[in-house]
Amino acid sequence: MSSSYRNFRNNVPWLILFLEAVFLGLFYFLFSDGGASRSSISYAAFQDVNHMVIFGFGFFLTFLRRYGFSSTGFNLLIIVLGVQCSLLTEGLLVFLLQRAREDGLKRLTKATLSMTAVVISTGAVLGKTNPVQLILMTVVETLVFQMSRFVNSTFLQVPDNIGMMHVHLFGAYFGLAVSSRFSEPPPRSEKNASTPKSDLFSMLGTLFLWVFWPSFNSVLAEDNKSKVIYNTYFALAASAVTAFVLSALTAKDGKFRMSHIHSAVLAGGVAVGYAAHRIEYPWIAMILGLLASVITVLGSYCLQRCLNPALKIHDASGVHFTFGLPGVLGALAQVVLLVIKNWADLSSLDYLVLVHIGAFCLTISVALITGFITGLILNLRLFKTTPVSKYFDDQFYWEFPHLAVGF
Amino acid sequence: MSSSYRNFRNNVPWLILFLEAVFLGLFYFLFSDGGASRSSISYAAFQDVNHMVIFGFGFFLTFLRRYGFSSTGFNLLIIVLGVQCSLLTEGLLVFLLQRAREDGLKRLTKATLSMTAVVISTGAVLGKTNPVQLILMTVVETLVFQMSRFVNSTFLQVPDNIGMMHVHLFGAYFGLAVSSRFSEPPPRSEKNASTPKSDLFSMLGTLFLWVFWPSFNSVLAEDNKSKVIYNTYFALAASAVTAFVLSALTAKDGKFRMSHIHSAVLAGGVAVGYAAHRIEYPWIAMILGLLASVITVLGSYCLQRCLNPALKIHDASGVHFTFGLPGVLGALAQVVLLVIKNWADLSSLDYLVLVHIGAFCLTISVALITGFITGLILNLRLFKTTPVSKYFDDQFYWEFPHLAVGF
Amino acid sequence: MSSSYRNFRNNVPWLILFLEAVFLGLFYFLFSDGGASRSSISYAAFQDVNHMVIFGFGFFLTFLRRYGFSSTGFNLLIIVLGVQCSLLTEGLLVFLLQRAREDGLKRLTKATLSMTAVVISTGAVLGKTNPVQLILMTVVETLVFQMSRFVNSTFLQVPDNIGMMHVHLFGAYFGLAVSSRFSEPPPRSEKNASTPKSDLFSMLGTLFLWVFWPSFNSVLAEDNKSKVIYNTYFALAASAVTAFVLSALTAKDGKFRMSHIHSAVLAGGVAVGYAAHRIEYPWIAMILGLLASVITVLGSYCLQRCLNPALKIHDASGVHFTFGLPGVLGALAQVVLLVIKNWADLSSLDYLVLVHIGAFCLTISVALITGFITGLILNLRLFKTTPVSKYFDDQFYWEFPHLAVGF
Repeated sequence: MSSSYRNFRNNVPWLILFLEAVFLGLFYFLFSDGGASRSSISYAAFQDVNHMVIFGFGFFLTFLRRYGFSSTGFNLLIIVLGVQCSLLTEGLLVFLLQRAREDGLKRLTKATLSMTAVVISTGAVLGKTNPVQLILMTVVETLVFQMSRFVNSTFLQVPDNIGMMHVHLFGAYFGLAVSSRFSEPPPRSEKNASTPKSDLFSMLGTLFLWVFWPSFNSVLAEDNKSKVIYNTYFALAASAVTAFVLSALTAKDGKFRMSHIHSAVLAGGVAVGYAAHRIEYPWIAMILGLLASVITVLGSYCLQRCLNPALKIHDASGVHFTFGLPGVLGALAQVVLLVIKNWADLSSLDYLVLVHIGAFCLTISVALITGFITGLILNLRLFKTTPVSKYFDDQFYWEFPHLAVGF
Repeated sequence: MSSSYRNFRNNVPWLILFLEAVFLGLFYFLFSDGGASRSSISYAAFQDVNHMVIFGFGFFLTFLRRYGFSSTGFNLLIIVLGVQCSLLTEGLLVFLLQRAREDGLKRLTKATLSMTAVVISTGAVLGKTNPVQLILMTVVETLVFQMSRFVNSTFLQVPDNIGMMHVHLFGAYFGLAVSSRFSEPPPRSEKNASTPKSDLFSMLGTLFLWVFWPSFNSVLAEDNKSKVIYNTYFALAASAVTAFVLSALTAKDGKFRMSHIHSAVLAGGVAVGYAAHRIEYPWIAMILGLLASVITVLGSYCLQRCLNPALKIHDASGVHFTFGLPGVLGALAQVVLLVIKNWADLSSLDYLVLVHIGAFCLTISVALITGFITGLILNLRLFKTTPVSKYFDDQFYWEFPHLAVGF
Repeated sequence: MSSSYRNFRNNVPWLILFLEAVFLGLFYFLFSDGGASRSSISYAAFQDVNHMVIFGFGFFLTFLRRYGFSSTGFNLLIIVLGVQCSLLTEGLLVFLLQRAREDGLKRLTKATLSMTAVVISTGAVLGKTNPVQLILMTVVETLVFQMSRFVNSTFLQVPDNIGMMHVHLFGAYFGLAVSSRFSEPPPRSEKNASTPKSDLFSMLGTLFLWVFWPSFNSVLAEDNKSKVIYNTYFALAASAVTAFVLSALTAKDGKFRMSHIHSAVLAGGVAVGYAAHRIEYPWIAMILGLLASVITVLGSYCLQRCLNPALKIHDASGVHFTFGLPGVLGALAQVVLLVIKNWADLSSLDYLVLVHIGAFCLTISVALITGFITGLILNLRLFKTTPVSKYFDDQFYWEFPHLAVGF
């Protein structure tokens, strides 16, 4: 084991403790007026999202054979830190700009939704970062995403529920940019693989996310909640069917590939997020879900063979095609639907299209640039990057008192 | 590997894609009026049922040592296809008969509830069907069950919430009839067994189903919702206790048998479904749950030793005693309760009893006959039946890039 | 295998059946007036608690390598028996004292909440008791806890939602007292250990409990529900962060220890239970969560090395520091908060402090005394104590038809 990291590791807890102390202090100054009043968001809706982020994504990322503890454990750690950080950033903005403050549960729900970006980025560098890098990434990404959302909502008048849907795009491209700065793992690493059991745990998380996705898309919708739920369900259904179709078409021998299913069944939910409140008929949502699933599976095929090796990006859990590409599709679909609907009124159309494309481009560019910078910073010698031989390995971070090795 | 299936397998995705295209076209014609209005069913109630069917039943069926991917994966596939098929059948009926249309979420909830029949039938042929057979079975069963429910509600005036409870009976007997046409697996097959870990995954699904069963029984109840919940809870509690009692009494050495627990703890919920809105006192529900558990464990003992070998039926996950027999008990209990309550008014009693027994007999006969025919069709050479040596094996349908074999 | 237990085991089911028959008879006499009317508790809130107790705690306790069946299975058994017993005790009290009866769902929710005490006590003797001992312990503990709650609410005027929070304290100290009467397992037993997979299952249960804990604390709160939820969330978040910090500080080499995470992430939820409705600002809840996590990890360090060996207590799943110590902290914090708030009015303060400390002391003393007596009774030869060599072993209670042994 690299002794340099061992020495460094002894400082890890102090860093986390320092961060928590800062958060506590800020909470004292910023949230000293209570705020737990009646909420426009029901507790059940918050709970669905909370469950998705803590439990669903935690197990969604357990597919690596020796990384189950870190996937679920570090996921919990970065989410609770990120939620606090997100609440404080928003609280600071509200304080500085003297805006009306939202109620406690709504703030908490929005902070939890924002965490999806962080979880997705974590997926891109899964197994390659040490806890300090993860936590730093969480804090930076949370701050930047809040800023990007703030710019979107203030200058481009993007409503809150749509702005939040950029979370997938932001998370995926931020994560990719960060991961481009990490060394690639050896091509046929034994640890960078799944077992049937770890794939089953990951399926558990995936099914959880699949079932709760309509809650994710509808939680911030103010009216049309039931329309959002309805459309999301159909988009998810169509993409689940298409996932099986395309997995069999692209895989050898016509067999299904579990990793395709994991990523492509969720694609419809991601893509429909932007426009779910505006889609009138289920068949439109279904076509969107179908297309999302198609670009996910084809994307997984093309990106992993062509683009990623060329750009030297190693996308550990395929967040580019699981969340990035369907997010792009959803953002474009939203614009297309806008154009079709407001065809008559060309003057306002121009403006609307511009705003939506502006928000989309802004989000991606901010994600890529800040992600790249974050990646550079995280790879400073100061942070004792995990050596490539210790990638994807729980034993580097966790005590293993277990007698058996049969993971 | 049988090369005939390999050639055939390349056509599987095209068949699914064709089906999805047909569904999409029908959605375009039938559901082009939106319909996502305010619903009489809460989103939380729909979500409970959706969670049960996708997550609960998916993991309930993972007890086979090498069939975890197919249990959870194919379960998702057939449910999303079946829900679409069920919605379209109901949409077509509403369109042809010019009836008032229900709101979107209610339609979706009913379609999801209907899927229980398909999932139960899948359990009866678990590990023996290829995906095409599964999908064909799903489509046929969904159509026939909708028809049977339509006949029940139109000609026998069975209310919707009771008619839906026939779902267990229909699923079990349809599945048994289908499975009677499949070859039996070799008696002591190594693959047709569970491991402690796969049993634990199955327990995960079972506990999920157990917890959510009151939602299943109450979701369509219009009034008396809390009575249904209350009675279902007590029936489940009594059958959980009885499951342990009878498992120890029938098993060797007085030990508990996990497969008994899996099937018998749910029996009470199935049996009480028909009459839960009518039972006044918890002790009646408890006795019903107790009896349901008794016939499940004794049924598992008798059927597996006597009836199934005689009829050459191989009931892969014991749906006959898990869902079939408790369903029969519940249907009879409902009649007995009716007789007791309306003793004074003999004229209406005759009619009521006739209607209930009629609906029950109709459901079972339709299930058995159509199931048998479906089984015959599925075993045509056209569908390349899975060879017996490939029964219960994920590797026949899924890529296994895993280095280790330690499932 | 000890043949004496084998003979005894054949009587186990009859004992359970007898108990269920008694329950059924009492239900007939006590609950023959229905009572499933509109409830002040929503079904969703009840369902959250039910899910926690059946599913969450069931998997929380699966960390032993060979005890997964018993952890989840026996958990279900004792909860369904305990809930019935708890309902009957309360029904009897209401009947004897001629009080107004609460509605069905509220009674059921309170009975389910009470079961937490039993589950926690089970954790203390996990793997060491046979089913009969477990069931007897469940019945006795349920009766005694109901009595203690009754005394608290009648003579000390502790409101219901606070009185219920004593459930963690009671469960932990009752369990510890019982476990002091059981023989200790051999120091380096191979069975008394976890595997990475069993730890992952336990993490699944832990995350479930973590997500649902705000429901647990808020379900009985009459007003301030959203305040309780809000504060509980922040306490949990702070204790999750602190768990990682302290785990790294106390463990060798600065690695994280999974067992610390399992117990310490929940500590904040336990501690904040008493005072969550009274805490005004999130930072107070966070400090409480932080302190709870600190005493849990330090407690685990000290108790396991010093106190437990000295007192010859073997606390199988560390309930003393997971639920006991944070409960004590919470009870004290409540008093401190009271003192701060009512500083001006010294006369009423004295009385309030006395009442709260009285309730706290009463609960612990009753738990310790009755737990000790129960432990003595359970170790009578009549109950055929499990031999030490069969501790922590599913195969002693469950059939293992599995071909493989690779648990």
